[in-house]
Amino acid sequence: MEGIEERGVKEVDYLAEERAGAQFHVHSMKIFLAGGQHEYEVSTRIANLVANDPVFAKEDRARISRKELYKNSLKKAGHAWKIILEKGLTEEESMRMRAFIDEPNYTDLHWGMFITALKGQATEEQQHKWLRQAYKLAIIGCYAQTELGHGSNVQGLETTATFDPSTDEFVLNSPTLTSTKWWPGGLGKASTHALVYARLITDSQDYGVHAFIAQIRSLDDHIPLPNVTVGDIGVKFGNGGYNSMDNGLLRFDHVRIPRENMLMKLARVTEQGKYERSNKPRQLGYGAMVYIRQGIVAEASVYLSRAVTIAVRYSAVRRQFGGKDDKAEVQVIDYRTQQHRLFPLLATAYAYRIVGFWMKWLYADVTERLNNNDFSNLPEVHACTAGLKSITTSVTADGIEQCRKLCGGHGYLCASGLPELYAAYVPACTYEGDNTILLLQVARFLLKTLTQVASGTKPVGTAAYLGNVQHLTSVNCEVSQGKDWLNPSVLLEAFEARSARMAVACAMHVAEAPDSELAFEELSPELVEAARAHCQLIVVSKFIEQAQKDLPGEGVKQQLEVLCNLYALSLLTTHSSDFLATGYLTGTQVSHAKDQQKALFSCVRPNAVALVDAFDHTDHYLGSALGRYDGDVYTHLYKGAWKDPLNESVVTEGYHEYLRPVLTQQLWGPTSKL
Amino acid sequence: MEGIEERGVKEVDYLAEERAGAQFHVHSMKIFLAGGQHEYEVSTRIANLVANDPVFAKEDRARISRKELYKNSLKKAGHAWKIILEKGLTEEESMRMRAFIDEPNYTDLHWGMFITALKGQATEEQQHKWLRQAYKLAIIGCYAQTELGHGSNVQGLETTATFDPSTDEFVLNSPTLTSTKWWPGGLGKASTHALVYARLITDSQDYGVHAFIAQIRSLDDHIPLPNVTVGDIGVKFGNGGYNSMDNGLLRFDHVRIPRENMLMKLARVTEQGKYERSNKPRQLGYGAMVYIRQGIVAEASVYLSRAVTIAVRYSAVRRQFGGKDDKAEVQVIDYRTQQHRLFPLLATAYAYRIVGFWMKWLYADVTERLNNNDFSNLPEVHACTAGLKSITTSVTADGIEQCRKLCGGHGYLCASGLPELYAAYVPACTYEGDNTILLLQVARFLLKTLTQVASGTKPVGTAAYLGNVQHLTSVNCEVSQGKDWLNPSVLLEAFEARSARMAVACAMHVAEAPDSELAFEELSPELVEAARAHCQLIVVSKFIEQAQKDLPGEGVKQQLEVLCNLYALSLLTTHSSDFLATGYLTGTQVSHAKDQQKALFSCVRPNAVALVDAFDHTDHYLGSALGRYDGDVYTHLYKGAWKDPLNESVVTEGYHEYLRPVLTQQLWGPTSKL
Ligand SMILES: Cc1cc2nc3c(=O)[nH]c(=O)nc-3n(C[C@H](O)[C@H](O)[C@H](O)COP(=O)(O)OP(=O)(O)OC[C@H]3O[C@@H](n4cnc5c(N)ncnc54)[C@H](O)[C@@H]3O)c2cc1C
Ligand SMILES: Cc1cc2nc3c(=O)[nH]c(=O)nc-3n(C[C@H](O)[C@H](O)[C@H](O)COP(=O)(O)OP(=O)(O)OC[C@H]3O[C@@H](n4cnc5c(N)ncnc54)[C@H](O)[C@@H]3O)c2cc1C
Repeated sequence: MEGIEERGVKEVDYLAEERAGAQFHVHSMKIFLAGGQHEYEVSTRIANLVANDPVFAKEDRARISRKELYKNSLKKAGHAWKIILEKGLTEEESMRMRAFIDEPNYTDLHWGMFITALKGQATEEQQHKWLRQAYKLAIIGCYAQTELGHGSNVQGLETTATFDPSTDEFVLNSPTLTSTKWWPGGLGKASTHALVYARLITDSQDYGVHAFIAQIRSLDDHIPLPNVTVGDIGVKFGNGGYNSMDNGLLRFDHVRIPRENMLMKLARVTEQGKYERSNKPRQLGYGAMVYIRQGIVAEASVYLSRAVTIAVRYSAVRRQFGGKDDKAEVQVIDYRTQQHRLFPLLATAYAYRIVGFWMKWLYADVTERLNNNDFSNLPEVHACTAGLKSITTSVTADGIEQCRKLCGGHGYLCASGLPELYAAYVPACTYEGDNTILLLQVARFLLKTLTQVASGTKPVGTAAYLGNVQHLTSVNCEVSQGKDWLNPSVLLEAFEARSARMAVACAMHVAEAPDSELAFEELSPELVEAARAHCQLIVVSKFIEQAQKDLPGEGVKQQLEVLCNLYALSLLTTHSSDFLATGYLTGTQVSHAKDQQKALFSCVRPNAVALVDAFDHTDHYLGSALGRYDGDVYTHLYKGAWKDPLNESVVTEGYHEYLRPVLTQQLWGPTSKL
Repeated sequence: MEGIEERGVKEVDYLAEERAGAQFHVHSMKIFLAGGQHEYEVSTRIANLVANDPVFAKEDRARISRKELYKNSLKKAGHAWKIILEKGLTEEESMRMRAFIDEPNYTDLHWGMFITALKGQATEEQQHKWLRQAYKLAIIGCYAQTELGHGSNVQGLETTATFDPSTDEFVLNSPTLTSTKWWPGGLGKASTHALVYARLITDSQDYGVHAFIAQIRSLDDHIPLPNVTVGDIGVKFGNGGYNSMDNGLLRFDHVRIPRENMLMKLARVTEQGKYERSNKPRQLGYGAMVYIRQGIVAEASVYLSRAVTIAVRYSAVRRQFGGKDDKAEVQVIDYRTQQHRLFPLLATAYAYRIVGFWMKWLYADVTERLNNNDFSNLPEVHACTAGLKSITTSVTADGIEQCRKLCGGHGYLCASGLPELYAAYVPACTYEGDNTILLLQVARFLLKTLTQVASGTKPVGTAAYLGNVQHLTSVNCEVSQGKDWLNPSVLLEAFEARSARMAVACAMHVAEAPDSELAFEELSPELVEAARAHCQLIVVSKFIEQAQKDLPGEGVKQQLEVLCNLYALSLLTTHSSDFLATGYLTGTQVSHAKDQQKALFSCVRPNAVALVDAFDHTDHYLGSALGRYDGDVYTHLYKGAWKDPLNESVVTEGYHEYLRPVLTQQLWGPTSKL
């Protein structure tokens, strides 16, 4: 095989040159993006541990059958657990390890949902009993809420748990086809236990949905318990991707569980079958919700930055057109159209990282408030975390596909790493709350806040700007030249004014309508847009806050300023109609923003490769021939191709049966199997 | 298994009710969408033939290994060929059959590119020799243009064909790694011949890229010929999808082919090695290009309508929330947010069907002109077909994913049919021209046209409105209430004004710049937007033309009017910043458009299911549990799940090796394989 050197151009050197041109201290940026020196050290150590362990290889994931894939993921999960125990890894280290292994499996739901829910909803006694088992993986739990017929509408679940005082048991039952539990991860083939959400019925009264622990498989031989029907729900989007997970189905035919298996922190049923609420505030669950959602935002940044890393590096290696008079062809990263689609995503990956840090703080803050029985800001926290979950996952999913398309034909190969990244990530738009429904919840909060503002209540936190609604709905933007757009307070005011105006317009519509529920429904597309604008404002404001802080490392602060401005201006130009419609901006001001955006592209360009290097993804984690650190793209595409099963034989399987008869026109001959 | 009847709601009846409520004659719409009575009859007959033949079953496609998938697709291709010969199917019938089989395979490139290119570029003598073989599939050809290093930039291809007068042969060679042919469909494992694009070198001079026929595999035993390296390039995006195709790689190590294997219609090399152009006009190739692109636009409509059919039917079956006081829950198709995302796509599927019809006419027109040596409108035709290819494929790919997300969690299952539809379709954004690069070509045409207009030339065809540029850049919209937006000439003017203004703004920028090439590059993001606006105008104008025609069938014309208005207003509200920025529209006028759009949603709602029925996709073709004609969604999701390979054994493979050791804490015991 000829080396690419023969082209007279060493691609492997391109990235070295790119790196040499960076205008900031990359290592300092790495530490910033990792969240600190300690986090950086842990991440680096664990990422390398995973990358160097052959059990965690993932190259062939897109090629193998579902069965092999699944079996292999069981192996990886077990192997990881063994390392965790052997090396005595901390919780932080263990979580990093699961992330770097980069393959969904039953332990995700066990640790992420089963244990989290037990902590939130089980009494201390129950926690003592179940968590002990769960912490050592002596039982494997899953989170069985969604049914065939109901996902978003949890209150519509149909599974029943009917109390039988004669035996002090609940009888779990799946009365209809649509009551079949459907989707829980880890349920299909791995879990021994399920946290089952079911309608609690006692004394012939339906008390609505509650959580119950049900054992579903034998701890001796893993065979499903009597009257339990359980299995996998089938193949999901993409090769590899989420198919290493056994999302499952589950039916109960009058299965009995002890009364104590109901999680009783917030409500309980007595031996006599009396339903009693506890005096614990129901808001206690909010902490867990903020925790899970900050994880989702942090993960969005990880996924988006992986895709952006691949696309930026490949765009710097890839050359196409130009190249007259013995000059090398143009690196596609130099095309403005490429920059226009790629650099805003790079800025977004930084933005989401920063919001992720802020949400970590928010979680700590909420936890402290809850401990002090201070529930005052919960609606605001709920709205902002729901909204941020929605916009970060939608933008990330679309952004990964955008990055894939930016790699031209080669992006369509699984060897690029991008198809699998997308397929594995995109359900984040659906699980933990459908993204549209979440934005409608944010919209409800905005309307409520405006009503409260009207009656004199001061809004708090991320909604505080609505206290300024008078000003924001009357002022107009004062930008008169491109550079004005680099002023943080100009940007902030623009996003506040836009969001406030959209919310106010909706609120007025709803207020004027005779039936406000009907009006809300009628206006829901606009409400979704208003909610999105509010959430984008949150991200912009957190990015601006961060960019104004001093940071160690030459040039680090400057890069963040550039990316912050680019992020804000990209949003502004993409959504310019929102700003134009109310006259806050003029067409000329939008033009200035576009010009300024291009000037920022030129600032980003020499730093682009270094800015993605700062995310510090290992080649193993990226799993991409196009995104390799060394830029040696073509060699690895070429070598990788030969590993396809179709290349195992020179003459293809099926030639004699199906190709030869065609070529020889012997479709009816004695040898034809057609 | 309990029937869903037990829920007291028969989903299977929902669609019957929906159908009963339709306000138009569905059968007439079917005939319209098929392109006529004859086409309808052929489609129906062939669709059923395919649906009822067990060889063409495709349920398990997402579950099986690449090897099985590929072998099976060879079987299907052979079986289809047998049917074609046995039944003596016409070309039209054969093409419909390949479409309904719905599985990419080597015959696509053989018929679609190899034969098409031969027809366009081979001399009559060459056609006589090669087409005879190709028509009976005695040879299998592929189209080998793209290389590892060059796709978009065809002029940069590196493969060489050096003429050796001593033997009257060309020597094909792959001098570098990046010169490896990479991507040609059918090349990997099936083709016996390749149409190879290579730099023609004779007399030490490089005459640029020309086409050559090279045999690559033996016709006796299918073994690659000496010094030919050929194989598959590996797994692509998605399960099933495009993986039934053997996109291939190909390297030549000084392989000799006869001089006559160069396609010589437009240029030839003499025995003495002299390069000579023929007197045939080079524009002759345009016919083939229009033909291929009209096929792509027609296909866009097919794919988009399949996704929309699935999402509309499922949204009518799916109920979520509401349902108090014993009322059934709300059908999710009744939510405005759902309509807002779904109905514009329904209208788009209709729009693209109509543009497809128009492009068929355009092809006939171009063919006739070419025969008369009339090349006058070729630039316009080129621009409009390139642009329509670009926007229809981008919108369709995104639309399929949108439809999938509209199905909530269940859309993520391959059983929904949508993941595979997306994965198989999305490369259409890249092949036959990267969509961004195509729009830049359209932009160049627009700038040139404006220059010509300035010097008094009258623009033709789809660019004719630019002759009116004075008016269009000065007039403002006169809409004063929602209903005004239903006036076709109001809509048309709005789209013309928008497109003209965007093009003019770019043209002025470029004209003012000292270096117009540099200015073009700098302005390329805006140029892409201007090109998109121009192409959207084409679609809107063709839809308006059609909607004004009388059509047989009660209510058919009315439905098309509604969909046409919806299509136009959805584009207008989505891109409202373009209209607002120059002051052509005010914010209030955009609000009117949004209100009117909602009124149109309400017109579409009772007809939605019938409007997708009119596309007449069989259940086989849709391959979707969610999109079934009878709406019996849950039964089929449930039954389908059990066919997953993971459900073959009750206790999962890998339990003893990888799960039991974890559960029993015996990770280091003698039985642990971890
Ligand atoms: C990969 C994956 C893993 C999962 N893991 C788990 C798990 O471990 N445990 C578990 O219990 N579940 C799990 N789920 C299920 C998941 O939580 C649900 O799919 C999700 O909540 C969405 O609900 P749905 O599917 O019912 O969507 P639906 O609510 O049916 O949504 C369908 C459409 O209707 C629209 N819609 C619905 N209601 C409204 C409304 N009121 N207003 C406007 N529009 C509306 C939605 O926007 C959407 O477009 C998983 C799902 C996936 C895809
Ligand atoms: C499924 C599939 C089937 C195919 N089948 C065949 C086949 O049968 N035969 C065959 O010969 N080929 C085939 N191809 C190859 C296909 O034609 C090329 O992939 C396509 O032309 C795009 O070229 P590229 O991959 O080189 O993209 P690139 O040109 O490398 O594009 C990469 C990025 O650079 C940008 N870019 C490049 N140049 C410019 C510019 N001048 N200005 C602005 N931006 C630019 C692009 O917009 C894109 O974002 C197939 C490809 C696929 C995915």
